[in-house]
Amino acid sequence: MLLSGGMDSGTCLAIARRRHARVAALTVVYGQRHAREIRAARALARHYRVREHRVLSIPLAGLVRSSLTDRRRSLPTGGPRPGRIPSTYVPARNTILLALALGYAESHRLDRIYIGANAIDYSGYPDCRPEFLRAFERVARLGTRAGVEGRPRIRVLAPLLRDSKADIVRRGERLRVPWQLTWSCYRGGRRPCGVCDSCRLRARGFRQAGVRDPLERKR
Amino acid sequence: MLLSGGMDSGTCLAIARRRHARVAALTVVYGQRHAREIRAARALARHYRVREHRVLSIPLAGLVRSSLTDRRRSLPTGGPRPGRIPSTYVPARNTILLALALGYAESHRLDRIYIGANAIDYSGYPDCRPEFLRAFERVARLGTRAGVEGRPRIRVLAPLLRDSKADIVRRGERLRVPWQLTWSCYRGGRRPCGVCDSCRLRARGFRQAGVRDPLERKR
Repeated sequence: MLLSGGMDSGTCLAIARRRHARVAALTVVYGQRHAREIRAARALARHYRVREHRVLSIPLAGLVRSSLTDRRRSLPTGGPRPGRIPSTYVPARNTILLALALGYAESHRLDRIYIGANAIDYSGYPDCRPEFLRAFERVARLGTRAGVEGRPRIRVLAPLLRDSKADIVRRGERLRVPWQLTWSCYRGGRRPCGVCDSCRLRARGFRQAGVRDPLERKR
Repeated sequence: MLLSGGMDSGTCLAIARRRHARVAALTVVYGQRHAREIRAARALARHYRVREHRVLSIPLAGLVRSSLTDRRRSLPTGGPRPGRIPSTYVPARNTILLALALGYAESHRLDRIYIGANAIDYSGYPDCRPEFLRAFERVARLGTRAGVEGRPRIRVLAPLLRDSKADIVRRGERLRVPWQLTWSCYRGGRRPCGVCDSCRLRARGFRQAGVRDPLERKR
């Protein structure tokens, strides 16, 4: 399970944990400015008692260009716009994360990779779309022992892919996801900024689901 | 260009360099026991005056299981066997390398990724096969801006894919690849061991092409 520490991966972990006795989590520190989310990932991994939680550091910040890995750039605050990929997009991030999860899964004979990707209320990142995930699943089959030796193939599961953010809140509520342990804000300050795309999507999801977000500022 | 420092990636770099004025090289230190090959990669990058040579360290050794990243395990010495994937296979390595190259390429607006993969005289790694590379190219298209904004798509080129090792030696000879700067031996000692799969494939290629390998021990 790829665990970022956000509300989607927290809910995805709750789903995976309900379905499987043995779940391992992989969190990648890639130079994201909201390294605060790593703490959230650790808290969620503890809460859900995953069998193993790996935190892997890879210095992507110098390799890729994104406002999410470069503190000199400003973060967009106007909210996601349909058909536009915002500057917070990290080139090939999900391909890299899934590739690392694939290496881990194959090495430990795990046959499913869970990812909290969502293609409805999302920032328009190309690597969150169903067709991308299907294409990666093919890579996973052809690029591993499964493609040659007939071992069980490794599947990529994104149970939240077609949920709205409000659906995710409702599913999470049913599964009693500890929202206070999750983290979404791209700024990664002491409190959520409330205006970055990630904060806006989160707030809308909670509002539409009629649920109070424990992280939200008191008004 | 993914540059490992071996004879295939050295030849591939010579090909890319002849075709393109602007070539950047990416070498990944993933915990391979033959870290000696990183020195070879640096020497080749200098020789071919690549525009930029990135050396990225990612601690894969704890994540994946392979005799190539675990010094406590022994390396096979009997030569590659058809239809068998040897213990030196590093789960998902090429998926991970290509994913990192994809992030770099997209960030720097480069539209081709070169990889020295070979599916003829090779160790039977699943992630060196043509169908895997085609599948990854699809991931590259769907998982990047190209899949949404109509930017030029990023292609994956493996010009040595269907060459025998002897073909590679012949091509390299024509391009004057400095074989003495390359490194193949999995053991990564002071001199090539001569018996690991990588040494055996290299030796056979040079022998069949009738070329002397400057790295070979004097008899």
